[in-house]
Amino acid sequence: MPTVRARDLTVEYESVCVDSDALDAARLMAEHKLPGLLVLDERGEPKAILPASQMIKVLVPAYVIEDPTLAAVVDEQHADRLCQALAGRRVGDCLSKTAAPPPIVDPDDTALEVAALMAQVRSPLVAVAEKAKDGTHLLGVITASHLLHELLGKTGTLSSTPGA
Amino acid sequence: MPTVRARDLTVEYESVCVDSDALDAARLMAEHKLPGLLVLDERGEPKAILPASQMIKVLVPAYVIEDPTLAAVVDEQHADRLCQALAGRRVGDCLSKTAAPPPIVDPDDTALEVAALMAQVRSPLVAVAEKAKDGTHLLGVITASHLLHELLGKTGTLSSTPGA
Repeated sequence: MPTVRARDLTVEYESVCVDSDALDAARLMAEHKLPGLLVLDERGEPKAILPASQMIKVLVPAYVIEDPTLAAVVDEQHADRLCQALAGRRVGDCLSKTAAPPPIVDPDDTALEVAALMAQVRSPLVAVAEKAKDGTHLLGVITASHLLHELLGKTGTLSSTPGA
Repeated sequence: MPTVRARDLTVEYESVCVDSDALDAARLMAEHKLPGLLVLDERGEPKAILPASQMIKVLVPAYVIEDPTLAAVVDEQHADRLCQALAGRRVGDCLSKTAAPPPIVDPDDTALEVAALMAQVRSPLVAVAEKAKDGTHLLGVITASHLLHELLGKTGTLSSTPGA
């Protein structure tokens, strides 16, 4: 059985730029029910993962996050104005100060190398990017569940293994 | 516009019991491409979220996680034996020692209360459960992206708002 490489497991994933409009990014997550977006820097290199929960944190007024019991007494009029928090903001403004850059693997890395990195950083996805002289080119991502499918599939333990 | 409650936003979600077979749980995640599973305790109460990345951590030998460069030299024969790590193990054995119990909301909590909790704990999902005399009954979960859809939808900022 040939060695499975990162490039074989790579799937497309919605990404936005740090300079993209924050409200557009929130809409993209909401409409496609995405748990997060991959954020690229000005040069198109993976910079961060923006989880949907972080976008919610930006939307919810700070005094409500500090004391969630206040949420029950904020009237609906105020709730309607929540997304004004995103008006005029960029995706870069919404990133958590502590957001780590996403783990990045090389397209030639083996499935086990990807698994080791994912296990180490406990990330639900890794970015797959090729390093070239003119910068880093994003190919897509590998999700933890897709990789799990590959690792289990190799041993024929999946009932729906293709071609089985 | 009537106040939206947690029960209105609740969706079904795949769950397993702490006593479920670990390999079955891994297969469930892999086949349905789930980022994680909700784990219930013996009484059916939400106990933890088991992310797919944690399951990968259980599969990958410890010496490879400590030194991912070893992954490149582990031959394919060994990779084939990875899922033996799950044989005879229970879901409870796979949980991280530091796994926090999932945030739980009441079906009557408002969307803003749910948002405040999600923002506070930065969880991609919260469990919705009803407390009764005979214990806690799970109704389902609310995902961050679904909640984001609700919060943005209220203000008509989504192009695909139903009935718009």
